[in-house]
Amino acid sequence: MKAAGSSLLVVGSIGLDTVETRAGKRADVLGGAASYFSVASSFLAPVRLVGVVGTDFPDAHTALFKNHQVDLGGLERVPGRTFRWSGVYAPDFSTRTTLDTQLNVFQEFRPKLPAAWASSEYVFLANIDPTLQLAVLEQAGKPRFVACDTMNFWIEGKRPELLALLERVDMLLLNDEEARQLSGQANLPAAARAIRALGPRAVVIKRGDAGALLFHEGGVFAAPAFPIEEVVDPTGAGDSFAGGFMGWLAREGDSSPATIRTAMILGSVLASFSVEDFSLDRFRRLDLSQIRERFSAFADLVHFEKIKL
Amino acid sequence: MKAAGSSLLVVGSIGLDTVETRAGKRADVLGGAASYFSVASSFLAPVRLVGVVGTDFPDAHTALFKNHQVDLGGLERVPGRTFRWSGVYAPDFSTRTTLDTQLNVFQEFRPKLPAAWASSEYVFLANIDPTLQLAVLEQAGKPRFVACDTMNFWIEGKRPELLALLERVDMLLLNDEEARQLSGQANLPAAARAIRALGPRAVVIKRGDAGALLFHEGGVFAAPAFPIEEVVDPTGAGDSFAGGFMGWLAREGDSSPATIRTAMILGSVLASFSVEDFSLDRFRRLDLSQIRERFSAFADLVHFEKIKL
Repeated sequence: MKAAGSSLLVVGSIGLDTVETRAGKRADVLGGAASYFSVASSFLAPVRLVGVVGTDFPDAHTALFKNHQVDLGGLERVPGRTFRWSGVYAPDFSTRTTLDTQLNVFQEFRPKLPAAWASSEYVFLANIDPTLQLAVLEQAGKPRFVACDTMNFWIEGKRPELLALLERVDMLLLNDEEARQLSGQANLPAAARAIRALGPRAVVIKRGDAGALLFHEGGVFAAPAFPIEEVVDPTGAGDSFAGGFMGWLAREGDSSPATIRTAMILGSVLASFSVEDFSLDRFRRLDLSQIRERFSAFADLVHFEKIKL
Repeated sequence: MKAAGSSLLVVGSIGLDTVETRAGKRADVLGGAASYFSVASSFLAPVRLVGVVGTDFPDAHTALFKNHQVDLGGLERVPGRTFRWSGVYAPDFSTRTTLDTQLNVFQEFRPKLPAAWASSEYVFLANIDPTLQLAVLEQAGKPRFVACDTMNFWIEGKRPELLALLERVDMLLLNDEEARQLSGQANLPAAARAIRALGPRAVVIKRGDAGALLFHEGGVFAAPAFPIEEVVDPTGAGDSFAGGFMGWLAREGDSSPATIRTAMILGSVLASFSVEDFSLDRFRRLDLSQIRERFSAFADLVHFEKIKL
């Protein structure tokens, strides 16, 4: 049974990014995990955004969310400056260096779900303090599927809180280095097995331009990255992946192994668009026909014939 | 039209390896690109081996080739010691350190094709001096498909010879760092495009546990690596890949885009077995039913449903 367009909620950062890559430089552009997630997922399902911005947050960015029917009922606007991040990527995109991080109003962020959102069925907890991620779950009723992201900073500094969170989520998304750090296992299948033993029934290990691996009750699934010759800005690719992924689950109203595999591809599709321009700019000129076309390109990318041997 | 079991020829190193990994240590075991290639490909097609060993080369290793119906009509046995390589892998397999290389009889290796082998239809030039790779082509008549491997040492030290070779081959296999070095392009699709402009109509970029990418007239194809929890020894994985790949082309007697995609998977299958034990030991207990089973596992690894969107 499908319940098309189930409710999807995201909690996470919204920020102003200053980014430099080989393709150019942009100052104070829209960034933050929840921004990428919500706009990416909006192509597939209605999405509810919980976050905080300062009084300096430009109306144009709010307008972008609204243009994508992102429900801003959980977006607080408080006195002070918006979260800011600044970084520069190596010319080959192999590394990035953070030049500056200003938490600003994000420092005191305590996520508050509007009462009506407590019944949200699909929930994504973007990379924030696991204490706050847990606080969201306290307010969230009984979602059908909860996924979370995390990072090395929390794995190292808030492990007990992170472990408490992992007991309560259906899926963890993280990159390969984080998976190794969290599990103490260098081998990725071994790392995924160790992480699943901590609670999540599914683990997605993101590997940048090497694609993503899903480990779940349906076995292992390998999603390739789309080969893109002109990468402009990789910022937010992982959150766009999560947006495409969760957007598909919410759209289908289902988290069966088959649906999760397809969600991996939709995640990869949205991530592949995200890196083609700075900030969320590629999403401004994206439509469903382009998403459909790239989904087909992914199918072609991995297609091979069955054989008699 | 298929010509089942077309003739397949490989030229390359045969050596005695001393290898240490987290799984243990082995001394003077069978190694060398042509060894891995020929035994891997032997599961799919009859293979002809051109190489050199010294008088110290154990009969047991010769017997392994014979057990796999590898035609040793081009294997020279000359006075002196066999090529030796010794190395140690980091516990997480992220790097390997060469401890010792002794060229020995390989130093004076001048490949000589038996006259009857000049008509070989599928030819693999494993990683040796491009001058020697060219010398093989001089003796090789008009093969239907020639693939070659190379390495950083030749890209840096014998670029003119390598470029002359690339004008005459159908396919180049190399790893991601080598592709970047050869092309001067950090981005892999851009690197592949630049390399194809040098001659090869197909380029395969091997990325270890991130799989392999094929760029050819049929577009781009991404082959995943099989997630293996207990890697024992990655030595020879790339040559086993090449063996499975070329073995499939020779078996099918065809190098159409569709056949090449399937060959990418057979290559990945043989590589995935190769790393499960030291040296060529996994191949000693491998059979066609296991290859068939893992091929199906690869199909499952990347399978996702088409969608309506």
